[in-house]
Amino acid sequence: MPPSPSEFAFIDSIRRAVRGDPRVPLGIGDDAALVRTVSAGCLVTVDMLMEGTDFTFPPATPQLAGRKSLAVNLSDIAAMGGVPTAAFVSLALPKSRGAAFASDIQAGIQALADEFDVVIAGGDTNSWDGPLVVSVSVLGEPGTRPPVRRSGARPGDWIFVTGACGGSIHGRHLTFTPRVKEAAALLAAVDVHAMIDVSDGLSADLHHILDESGVGAEVEAASIPIHPDTALDATRDPLERALGDGEDFELIFTVSPEDGRRLLESPPPAVSLTRIGTIVEQNARTLSLPDGRVIPLPRSGWEHHLGKAGGA
Amino acid sequence: MPPSPSEFAFIDSIRRAVRGDPRVPLGIGDDAALVRTVSAGCLVTVDMLMEGTDFTFPPATPQLAGRKSLAVNLSDIAAMGGVPTAAFVSLALPKSRGAAFASDIQAGIQALADEFDVVIAGGDTNSWDGPLVVSVSVLGEPGTRPPVRRSGARPGDWIFVTGACGGSIHGRHLTFTPRVKEAAALLAAVDVHAMIDVSDGLSADLHHILDESGVGAEVEAASIPIHPDTALDATRDPLERALGDGEDFELIFTVSPEDGRRLLESPPPAVSLTRIGTIVEQNARTLSLPDGRVIPLPRSGWEHHLGKAGGA
Repeated sequence: MPPSPSEFAFIDSIRRAVRGDPRVPLGIGDDAALVRTVSAGCLVTVDMLMEGTDFTFPPATPQLAGRKSLAVNLSDIAAMGGVPTAAFVSLALPKSRGAAFASDIQAGIQALADEFDVVIAGGDTNSWDGPLVVSVSVLGEPGTRPPVRRSGARPGDWIFVTGACGGSIHGRHLTFTPRVKEAAALLAAVDVHAMIDVSDGLSADLHHILDESGVGAEVEAASIPIHPDTALDATRDPLERALGDGEDFELIFTVSPEDGRRLLESPPPAVSLTRIGTIVEQNARTLSLPDGRVIPLPRSGWEHHLGKAGGA
Repeated sequence: MPPSPSEFAFIDSIRRAVRGDPRVPLGIGDDAALVRTVSAGCLVTVDMLMEGTDFTFPPATPQLAGRKSLAVNLSDIAAMGGVPTAAFVSLALPKSRGAAFASDIQAGIQALADEFDVVIAGGDTNSWDGPLVVSVSVLGEPGTRPPVRRSGARPGDWIFVTGACGGSIHGRHLTFTPRVKEAAALLAAVDVHAMIDVSDGLSADLHHILDESGVGAEVEAASIPIHPDTALDATRDPLERALGDGEDFELIFTVSPEDGRRLLESPPPAVSLTRIGTIVEQNARTLSLPDGRVIPLPRSGWEHHLGKAGGA
């Protein structure tokens, strides 16, 4: 469908914000953008966020919904050890919410883009009778090293996580800082073998690394960094939430024991790191509980009680 | 939100289809894909299609909806004179429609991707209670020449269109062939000054070229190639539909008179071309009607009758 006049106006407002970035020789105003690539390849990630699933209004504001739709993609580029450069924003805007809603979403996206020096290089703006849908695609430079994959974990590796996990639904899933700078600092300091960002949950995403690497893991429950936000719901177990909640957008990564010791002795500035376990051979995926029990590392959330935890 | 088991299965099925393409050294299975770039830049385009706006079921099938969601993006890359290489597919799948619906959409996307040698390199699959939303991002190689912009039209240029326009709503908007091969053939034969694909409508998209190039145009109504599908609705004027309907996904382009004559004398094989007018200085945008009247070139559809046409 042809864009409505308000969609043209929206595109024009983005266009003005974009003009003149050397990384995007051709931006909005043609059928496709031209994004300059320094390396022989570019990282690409896409995420689609839907009203009612990934955010609701309230507690989310349009600015925060826009922010999150870009932030989750920056987190993906960070998890590859890359540097995000350009973003493309597709919108299905609810007709009932009007033009201010659209520009608030754009403002939320643009503010985070500015913070991370990402250029909004294009998009597709539509309106309809349905709820808000935002699909963002982000391109990134791989950086000086090959991209860090999920599949590089080796037996003996130490498993780390940045920040703390759990309880993001109380607000942090809208306001988190994608760990782009942290990933760059880690890659500059050590040889990161495998990395992923925590979207499905600390436990589920660690399983992704284990699956892709063909290895197992021994995780110490007592070492899991539990976010204080988990206390905002007293009916649920904080450890369970830290392992199962998802949308923390912290980084899980593995390094050799030598590099692990180096990180603990002199962590990169402003990077919060916790060792949570060790990579082992394939057939063991365990969680050591504070009471001494060793249970299978759950793949997702518990079945309500630690005692019912099952290995996937 | 973490993907559901059916979403994981869907991602796995895509992953199997993708494996092993040298243009995508890292595909599905990491946080981002790595797409190889041959040139110092890549073309990027995104389009979001929504059920109820861009297609309805029926007459569309899930295969055709999937096909269209990729085809519109291939058309954008073609309009830049590029070669599409990799596609990323974000889906919001209606929960009510089940798993077969999802795999039918994927099959429609994959079949067209195979036809144009495009690798499906990643995506984001979600399900929700809303209607189907498909957002596709396509990367392309700029080819051996700089990308063809909308802004390159010069006074004196001849204006051409591929194929025929109008009436695509009767079915062609779902089944059209993106003019990737035609664009490549044109670029190999002549120096294309400006190009755009017909999504908003022949007249509206020509206006985009004129706006971006800062020029005017004299268009001959009698020369407009009118698609026979316009006859499927006898209540509307075929010429009006050819100029105003949209979603033809043909290419409008301009070349020098010398190149124009060359194209008419020896058109590239299998490329249907019609000259529809001439680029002129800025302040004239006219449409010469068969009855001798000269009216302002309408920006979009007529006001129901030719006599009411206004220059937008």
